[in-house]
Amino acid sequence: MATRIGTQTIKFEKFPVIKGFASVCGLKESQGPLGKLFDKTFDDNRFGQETWEKSEAVLQQEAVSLAIKKSNVKNSEIDFVFAGDLLDQCISSMMGLKNLKIPFLGQFGACSTMAQTLLVSSIFIESGAARNAIAVTSSHFCSAERQYRFPLDYGGQRTPNAQWTVTGSGAVVLGENNKNLKNPKIKHVTAGTIEDLGVTDSSNMGAAMAPAAAVTLKNFFKDTKTSPNEYDLIVSGDLGETGALILQELLIKEKIDISKNYNDCGLMIFHKEKQDVHAGGSGCGCSASVLCSYILQKMTKKELNNVLFMATGALMSPTSFQQGNNIPGIAHLIHISN
Amino acid sequence: MATRIGTQTIKFEKFPVIKGFASVCGLKESQGPLGKLFDKTFDDNRFGQETWEKSEAVLQQEAVSLAIKKSNVKNSEIDFVFAGDLLDQCISSMMGLKNLKIPFLGQFGACSTMAQTLLVSSIFIESGAARNAIAVTSSHFCSAERQYRFPLDYGGQRTPNAQWTVTGSGAVVLGENNKNLKNPKIKHVTAGTIEDLGVTDSSNMGAAMAPAAAVTLKNFFKDTKTSPNEYDLIVSGDLGETGALILQELLIKEKIDISKNYNDCGLMIFHKEKQDVHAGGSGCGCSASVLCSYILQKMTKKELNNVLFMATGALMSPTSFQQGNNIPGIAHLIHISN
Repeated sequence: MATRIGTQTIKFEKFPVIKGFASVCGLKESQGPLGKLFDKTFDDNRFGQETWEKSEAVLQQEAVSLAIKKSNVKNSEIDFVFAGDLLDQCISSMMGLKNLKIPFLGQFGACSTMAQTLLVSSIFIESGAARNAIAVTSSHFCSAERQYRFPLDYGGQRTPNAQWTVTGSGAVVLGENNKNLKNPKIKHVTAGTIEDLGVTDSSNMGAAMAPAAAVTLKNFFKDTKTSPNEYDLIVSGDLGETGALILQELLIKEKIDISKNYNDCGLMIFHKEKQDVHAGGSGCGCSASVLCSYILQKMTKKELNNVLFMATGALMSPTSFQQGNNIPGIAHLIHISN
Repeated sequence: MATRIGTQTIKFEKFPVIKGFASVCGLKESQGPLGKLFDKTFDDNRFGQETWEKSEAVLQQEAVSLAIKKSNVKNSEIDFVFAGDLLDQCISSMMGLKNLKIPFLGQFGACSTMAQTLLVSSIFIESGAARNAIAVTSSHFCSAERQYRFPLDYGGQRTPNAQWTVTGSGAVVLGENNKNLKNPKIKHVTAGTIEDLGVTDSSNMGAAMAPAAAVTLKNFFKDTKTSPNEYDLIVSGDLGETGALILQELLIKEKIDISKNYNDCGLMIFHKEKQDVHAGGSGCGCSASVLCSYILQKMTKKELNNVLFMATGALMSPTSFQQGNNIPGIAHLIHISN
């Protein structure tokens, strides 16, 4: 059973367990600080496909296939796939995973989607509706850049607050813990509300998402009656340099200091200066690939034991920001523990 | 607890109950056969907004607000909103519902989204993760037509198989049945797999979606060991004339005859000849608004008692079909009973 505690946190009793995970990334990511930790990387960003959308689909396909293999769970024992991406109509997820023949429920939370797929998977498993489920997301620099900003060939100048969409995917096979596995488990989840502070700059996603992250994190600590120091790592998805600073400032106003153990996947995945990524990495493939490499590998080795993984999303479409609308943010949090 | 039965059906024990529902539609829908059953209709399709996307957001906002009012559930007792639409990045849902301040999980299943939001809501409620949840979707002829096909002013010729995107929204407040309510309840749900039979014509959605509908319906009957005649109504979301025929033909090959009690929301919402809608209505607002008017009103009056509501989606983006990709389909089924 899942139990609601406080305002918006769900506490599990049986603890859905992470049976397998895998990350697959592009060339630039392979050259970053986590390059050697990814299960698979490619030497170009096409992966043998004729469109960027199909290339992105390959990322999800490979990540899911590797995660299933590593989990030792049979395809026939997986009851749901929860997947999403940044493209219009989540098309890379649909194209990449259609051959799995597992009931499919598309999730859209922009860059928060990895936390969202884990959140929904956990509740399906805890309820008995699924024995095992896949949670997967991806992003691709080339498909995202063309869709959200400019065609690549245009060579548009990037602003200092801009982030670099990660070409990558991360997949988790989550399941009921019927074999008393010692793997990392989901203890709590907190789904976020939409927060709109009036940001309209689509090159400053960090500022758009940070307020939502602050609300979710604050509510999680309140609901669970815990404090930042009880966790080994508090990691946001892709706030980048600008957003990470704003998040910490907003929390300090609430008397919450996360500075000792806080990091951001967008700051972890690239060498800031050497790789020319301005405010850091972004995209739902950013948090997914960092979770499914560095974080879960460290948890498996018991070098990290108690982690808050919070992915944030900027809720906009190219149409909505061209029409001058605000870019609200959202943040979902997953408490993973050994 | 939710229990898996057969291949892909989930059976509930506590039966999430429909506490409130509402439908809000545009002018053309108000002139159709169900016009008088909608809770609210408008005299134009702008609803006082300066963009079609914002107009569509108004539909969701109004439908949710009316459904909550009719349910007698307080906002503070609603723990999740599951919403989606056909627009890029589900932007109408985000814009329409951001002020609710209820944890928000965006769902994308193209036109199958109403069934998907109900499915996910049911499992959250059954698991204890939510006391009450909102399931809502919308579509708008003008925002969809511009995004998927042609700008309205272009006046493009419509093919005979084309369908007319419904300007409408339907919202359901679903909750735990702690007061022994006699309202319609969710008994089973069946999530569908992605089925790709190679359709590439974006003006023939019915053909793209029908194979997925046939698979889901066949599996549901097999999993529950029931037959079509045990239900008062088997209703698909928006297969339209072409898709509805294909679905019935595909099922006949499996020795399943649904002809006695089958209908399609896309065929119910418009006067076929008089309203010039070719193969019928479509869009996730089509199934949502018919469910939240005709179907649930008849169930409340006990004129219908045992209904299979199956919404189908065509999984494509303007980019994917312009790149020549197939349009796979998906179908999710909700068994609603008094």
